[in-house]
Amino acid sequence: MKTILLITTGGTIACRKNEAGVYSPELRGRELTACVPEIASICEPRYNDIYQTPLDSTNIQLSDWALMSEAIYAGLTQDCDGIVVTMGTDTMSYTAAMLSFMLINPHKPVILTGSQIPMTAPGTDGKQNLLDAFQTALAGYPGIYIVFDGKIIYGTRASKVDALSSCAIEPINVPRAGSVTAGGVLMEHPIKIPAGGETRMDNRVCGDVFLLKLIPGLVPDKIDTLLDLGFKGIVLEVFGLQGIPTASDGRASVYQSIKKVLERGKTIPIAATTQCVKGETNFGVYALGGRELLEAGLIPCYDMTTEAAVTKLMWLLGHDYSVGEIKAEMLRNYCGEISDTAASRAWTPELGASGEDRRDSGVNLPV
Amino acid sequence: MKTILLITTGGTIACRKNEAGVYSPELRGRELTACVPEIASICEPRYNDIYQTPLDSTNIQLSDWALMSEAIYAGLTQDCDGIVVTMGTDTMSYTAAMLSFMLINPHKPVILTGSQIPMTAPGTDGKQNLLDAFQTALAGYPGIYIVFDGKIIYGTRASKVDALSSCAIEPINVPRAGSVTAGGVLMEHPIKIPAGGETRMDNRVCGDVFLLKLIPGLVPDKIDTLLDLGFKGIVLEVFGLQGIPTASDGRASVYQSIKKVLERGKTIPIAATTQCVKGETNFGVYALGGRELLEAGLIPCYDMTTEAAVTKLMWLLGHDYSVGEIKAEMLRNYCGEISDTAASRAWTPELGASGEDRRDSGVNLPV
Repeated sequence: MKTILLITTGGTIACRKNEAGVYSPELRGRELTACVPEIASICEPRYNDIYQTPLDSTNIQLSDWALMSEAIYAGLTQDCDGIVVTMGTDTMSYTAAMLSFMLINPHKPVILTGSQIPMTAPGTDGKQNLLDAFQTALAGYPGIYIVFDGKIIYGTRASKVDALSSCAIEPINVPRAGSVTAGGVLMEHPIKIPAGGETRMDNRVCGDVFLLKLIPGLVPDKIDTLLDLGFKGIVLEVFGLQGIPTASDGRASVYQSIKKVLERGKTIPIAATTQCVKGETNFGVYALGGRELLEAGLIPCYDMTTEAAVTKLMWLLGHDYSVGEIKAEMLRNYCGEISDTAASRAWTPELGASGEDRRDSGVNLPV
Repeated sequence: MKTILLITTGGTIACRKNEAGVYSPELRGRELTACVPEIASICEPRYNDIYQTPLDSTNIQLSDWALMSEAIYAGLTQDCDGIVVTMGTDTMSYTAAMLSFMLINPHKPVILTGSQIPMTAPGTDGKQNLLDAFQTALAGYPGIYIVFDGKIIYGTRASKVDALSSCAIEPINVPRAGSVTAGGVLMEHPIKIPAGGETRMDNRVCGDVFLLKLIPGLVPDKIDTLLDLGFKGIVLEVFGLQGIPTASDGRASVYQSIKKVLERGKTIPIAATTQCVKGETNFGVYALGGRELLEAGLIPCYDMTTEAAVTKLMWLLGHDYSVGEIKAEMLRNYCGEISDTAASRAWTPELGASGEDRRDSGVNLPV
């Protein structure tokens, strides 16, 4: 019988109602699998409850990602066949992306799951999700995935799209990798990991990143001040494909604020994703100053999710890269987070010169 | 034959490729309808091109909303049967929400539309969308709607969910109001506007609002500074239902930053929406300090979209309301932006005392 390591962190799936009538994450690994008797009949579970007090995933910090990556790395390099990680859904997409950057060449399945309704509550989706996660881990496809609501989703391509329903996590800009069905695990597009690549962990990150989601009417003066607060990196969520407000008559604009920071010695990387849940950024379509921003150093994230862009930028900032190198690395596909074809679709000057893959991952999605 | 007023502002639908190979909004109303000959056979169009130089909707500012509301108000009070407004998709959801707050008791159809592919480009969705918008305006259901990709969507319940595909704008948390089909306009759930209500325009707004979308790892010190930049109102996009990072051990946290501002004499309103495209905020579910934030004055926006919450807060800040009154008004349904049932689902102390409807709209969605 195969051995599956269950790493628990907390989250809604582990919640119990307390005396005040609100939910709090309390269940440990053994209590979780005890709720799903089928699990013991298909594998031998091992347990690693990494917190004394389990976490609501809203509270996940950089140090938690370090802890989680270490627990998973231990599973990857020790004697088990696959790993299931339970956590809350609130930051599951950010976490799955960050773990994908931190864990290089994972040669075993690493399956994140959770639930929208606590395991202890009527109608919970936790039992099905946990069983699906174990089944997917047993199916043996290596790589970091989220399993949720029957969908097997690439770790770098997920987003929490619904705060209420059990279809909370969806694949973004790519098909799902596979499904867990009544007929078992149907893996359609597994991640390809080079057979000879050594499994490594590199969890150096810098969390000093700010996400600026644009809205109409932003006051440029205040955006100037905000961009000067000393963040080490900025991710802009622009409107649609490339929407950053300009002012054709020379008045102050958010566009000018960003251009100033980019041109000022290129001291911090500024990356752009779209605030639409699906689609991509492409600064070559409209006559809105897109090309000028690219020339000034703006990093277009193409079809990367905001979750992947934020965590990749944090990961890169934890390493000794120059701002120019960070731009090149952001555009390079590390583990499926950006389509190889995406970066060549639009005009951008640096793409030919991106050099060797420093992370040496070679992990690719089949999309 | 009915008369439909076409108000144009620019946007992708009006784009033409310039010499540099990029698109720029140039087409005027007569050029747009000339691309769709069916329009002249079903109604008599009138035109109001409100800009000398048409706008990319990314650049829509508060003054543009004022201009648009005035042009629409003129149509509502003068001799025409319905109004179609063309604009870009980037800020269409924000604009439709803001116009819904600015225009009270609109007794004619006001239909916003646009396209993802320029009217002048092969495969454009602009022709179908413009014809659908005219057909919906002719169908005569009063109220402010977006018509896009065959969907008739409430002005306060839309979001741009895809930067690339022609299904760019979707209804959020409510069904679509209706559809434009091969069989004509099928209006299933029209907005109910009180027959006797006077059509009014109130376009006083204050745009000094900041949208803070949370990410894991935010540095509390910098959030303190950001919250002190003098914004008149803040909208938080939290994780899931109520996720705002706390630190149980008394360390600094984003939660503490927000609580401090709320408790400091309640000087600025802070409203919370979810960063999930669907679902709602509900601060009564988890043991994460949600109730304490509500008691300190946080405004839970329940099932309101971020677009509606941002524009409603801007509209309320343009009026003489105290911070406490703004909280009560944010929770009251003005024109379908928040479900009447939403506010009673969770524990919140102020709900019983919300007083009279100052905007006196009475517009309701049938949901």
